Amino acid sequence: MNTSTQHSPCETPAWQALAAHAAALRDTRLRTLFGEDPRRFERFSLAAAGLTLDYSKNRVDARALELLFALARERGLEAARDQMFAGVPINNTEGRAVLHVALRAPAGARFEVDGEDVMPAVAAVRERVGEFATAVREGSWRGYTGEAVSDVVNIGIGGSDLGPAMACQALAAYGHARLTMHFVSNVDGDQLAQVLARVNPARTLFVIASKTFTTIETMTNAASARAWFLAGGAAEKDIARHFVAVSTNAAKVAEFGIDAANMFGFWDWVGGRYSMWSAVGLPIALWVGRENFEAMLDGAHGMDRHFAEAPLEANMPAILALLGVWYRAFFHATSVCIAPYSQALARMPAYLQQLEMESNGKSVTRDGQPVAMSTCPVVWGEPGTNGQHAFFQLLHQGTDLIPVDFIAPLKAAHTLPGHHRLLLANCIAQSKALMVGKTADEVRAELTAAGMSGAALEALVPHRVFQGNRPSNTILMPALSPRSLGALIALYEHKVFVQGIIWDVNSFDQWGVELGKQLATRIVGELASGDAEHEDASTRGLIGMVRAAS
Amino acid sequence: MNTSTQHSPCETPAWQALAAHAAALRDTRLRTLFGEDPRRFERFSLAAAGLTLDYSKNRVDARALELLFALARERGLEAARDQMFAGVPINNTEGRAVLHVALRAPAGARFEVDGEDVMPAVAAVRERVGEFATAVREGSWRGYTGEAVSDVVNIGIGGSDLGPAMACQALAAYGHARLTMHFVSNVDGDQLAQVLARVNPARTLFVIASKTFTTIETMTNAASARAWFLAGGAAEKDIARHFVAVSTNAAKVAEFGIDAANMFGFWDWVGGRYSMWSAVGLPIALWVGRENFEAMLDGAHGMDRHFAEAPLEANMPAILALLGVWYRAFFHATSVCIAPYSQALARMPAYLQQLEMESNGKSVTRDGQPVAMSTCPVVWGEPGTNGQHAFFQLLHQGTDLIPVDFIAPLKAAHTLPGHHRLLLANCIAQSKALMVGKTADEVRAELTAAGMSGAALEALVPHRVFQGNRPSNTILMPALSPRSLGALIALYEHKVFVQGIIWDVNSFDQWGVELGKQLATRIVGELASGDAEHEDASTRGLIGMVRAAS
Repeated sequence: MNTSTQHSPCETPAWQALAAHAAALRDTRLRTLFGEDPRRFERFSLAAAGLTLDYSKNRVDARALELLFALARERGLEAARDQMFAGVPINNTEGRAVLHVALRAPAGARFEVDGEDVMPAVAAVRERVGEFATAVREGSWRGYTGEAVSDVVNIGIGGSDLGPAMACQALAAYGHARLTMHFVSNVDGDQLAQVLARVNPARTLFVIASKTFTTIETMTNAASARAWFLAGGAAEKDIARHFVAVSTNAAKVAEFGIDAANMFGFWDWVGGRYSMWSAVGLPIALWVGRENFEAMLDGAHGMDRHFAEAPLEANMPAILALLGVWYRAFFHATSVCIAPYSQALARMPAYLQQLEMESNGKSVTRDGQPVAMSTCPVVWGEPGTNGQHAFFQLLHQGTDLIPVDFIAPLKAAHTLPGHHRLLLANCIAQSKALMVGKTADEVRAELTAAGMSGAALEALVPHRVFQGNRPSNTILMPALSPRSLGALIALYEHKVFVQGIIWDVNSFDQWGVELGKQLATRIVGELASGDAEHEDASTRGLIGMVRAAS
Repeated sequence: MNTSTQHSPCETPAWQALAAHAAALRDTRLRTLFGEDPRRFERFSLAAAGLTLDYSKNRVDARALELLFALARERGLEAARDQMFAGVPINNTEGRAVLHVALRAPAGARFEVDGEDVMPAVAAVRERVGEFATAVREGSWRGYTGEAVSDVVNIGIGGSDLGPAMACQALAAYGHARLTMHFVSNVDGDQLAQVLARVNPARTLFVIASKTFTTIETMTNAASARAWFLAGGAAEKDIARHFVAVSTNAAKVAEFGIDAANMFGFWDWVGGRYSMWSAVGLPIALWVGRENFEAMLDGAHGMDRHFAEAPLEANMPAILALLGVWYRAFFHATSVCIAPYSQALARMPAYLQQLEMESNGKSVTRDGQPVAMSTCPVVWGEPGTNGQHAFFQLLHQGTDLIPVDFIAPLKAAHTLPGHHRLLLANCIAQSKALMVGKTADEVRAELTAAGMSGAALEALVPHRVFQGNRPSNTILMPALSPRSLGALIALYEHKVFVQGIIWDVNSFDQWGVELGKQLATRIVGELASGDAEHEDASTRGLIGMVRAAS
């Protein structure tokens, strides 16, 4: 799929031209670029699938973008994108297609894997998810004592947790009044114990989400939930009314006591971190209802069409991705800060951490050569305005360049007066502050106006200077609706895809999680037996401490 | 306080020797260091204030540590530490002492600011906080209809939010059964609206935490909470039974309707991010009770004594700090991952983000010169085991070196069988996996044993290799008790102090938050008036979009 892996991407003409241009731009100030071009906002912003991306506060000019698009073409981005949509097994180390886009396609679309249209199966599961969600919400689904469900507990981890948890929080304004959603992921029993202390078994529905039904954290939590349920007075046969599965392992699901009719499947062309659109999204459907869930899918589909069809020069995911590549390669950026100005999007940084870092946190190319450049940066963040009172100090005055993605809904879901205008003013002000900074002369003038002078003034000046010239994107959505949320997440999914192509890594495997799992299996035995003589001194010492404490 | 600021710290003998030694160690493998020294764990671990730090999995040898301690002495660390404890105004840009250590000192201790012992005032506020917490918990404090308090809503942001929120979650096992704690920080009204939808005004106590009582986010939320309370049927005079203040602005507090007797003060020698030990910790005292709150203070005090008294070679905060400096300066580490293997510590990364990044995210030295080296890295993280299913892929196989702090309680607060052993096994396994990695030969042997061979095997090998040699610390506490939590937070506070001394920045100011505040004040007016002609094109464009949507 990628025609340029034969030689190092850093040696190609596009890369060399980019490096030279980045060096030339190094001392150019964003203030200057804005001063030179009063139409910079119109030029460097675009709308797609209901979202607006303002990328004008980036340290690029038209030439830089031109070179970035040339790089993308040199790397075969358009062909690679078409291959993904065509169901080619682009997850080459696992021999799998990558078709989460099929999960949000409308009726009548066609996506093939090995010559077979996957859409009938997708539609069938979507239908079952919708029907089940409706039954629970309407109260026709009853627990073993005849009561309707009041609490849903999703037990899953990673991709079976972060997407549903993030989306249910984001869409709380659309949530069902009778339901409370709980998410249990950590094998730390504290999390499950606290949920169980708050719910009534007769009114609780557990969703056990594990493709293989063998994920150790999930199955440990599921077993404890099951034991708690039975200890509460229910019988084995009642499990089928209170536990459903998102899985493909029918045997294990049945063994657990779950009715096969309540197992919701997915496919090997759906990666865990791309799975909230599948049956893994069941908690979302339960919480916001079938129509809203489908609106979320449709929002993502809108971004899919945009990504598939728009020329790179007007392609939002491509632009977002290429700007990230630019800073990573030429400005020593090692992390990206995600700042949603929306408390409901509080878990979006954690969601994007998995999406980006598990996808592109790789050191070898698709064909197994060491990568020639830095790949995925750290993704982190907290909602604004909270971050302003915590770590924004470092964004403004620290020693590293850290690009920020500001994300905000134009309309609020609540009716408290004044709050939303203040929120948006802060969002706009922070990106401006990062961009313009404040010079020593400006500080001097300000302190002089405040009545300071002489040595006391001069001593304070350097501390109050802001270098500025720090880049950011601003992504605006009309409101935090299911549709906008779908488009927003799809935007980042495709951003990750584009970066994977530029960096030439397989964005769809995750071999880096295997070693820890292997060692944990061994060490859990050693914690029990104490037989750890062959381990290194630290591991031995730590095992000794755990055993001494228990 | 610092005798070496006259010349660049990078030119000093200690720094030069460190740089040379780091270069010499660059290719040394942790596997080798462990192989050479079966006592490496004993040598490179220590206990203090109930905590154990295992720092053996760091890329250092005895010589590296020796040089780091020499650097610390060259930078005057011991004298600087003594100055802090002595109440010297080491926050030089604001002319303030830094005495959060006084807040957790026992009766009989003496801390002076400008020749005056602050301890009587500290003890008086602590006594009032304790008495108030007891009254609310026992139910003798009643709302305006005569009911006891069931819900506490803390309204504060940054230092007036993250500490209490983190600690109340951490100590949930110690929480009062009748109380539910809520934390509202964001000016996004969504957060407050969701809390208000869940609580009953007659049983709700609001804690308004803002030193000046002018913090815009906090006062906006407080005003909305007040309006909601009055709209619920209460009268103005009832405010005094349902709102208390953590503040020093008596006039504004009285104007709000809060009884002066229910204003809990603190002092200008308590920085916001160091304030959870002061009256800002009132929600913690309400939640876990006076004795547990004081046990938390005492745990921190234990770490204070250790920090003040232990020689650098056995000083836990100093060691933690110097290792961070080592990676930042010589291994291009730009972030630190905090991985608490404890769901109850889920907000600790966010807490440490503020503590570290707001303290040391600076680009000028204490006396206003540009810093000669990189200062504070990004601090980020999520609880294990969740992180393993999200971003650990990048920690293991990404292109950057990212040191990790693993933090775990040896004993669980819950009784679910099996979970805690699995949790700790994973914690130990991850640090081991990062350290040992997996070589191509080991992968080959494993795949061969699994029945693979030939080209298929060879194609997979590079993807399954782990470079290893990635450093981490492991911090163990006996259990997540108030005492251990206090010691743990104090450990990081003093780590930050030490790094501030090495980097020669003022860890106690935060001038970098000012510009955004100024611009937000201006832009909120422009959002209302539409008069934004003088703004840059991006700001104008964004303001236009907000106005068009409203």
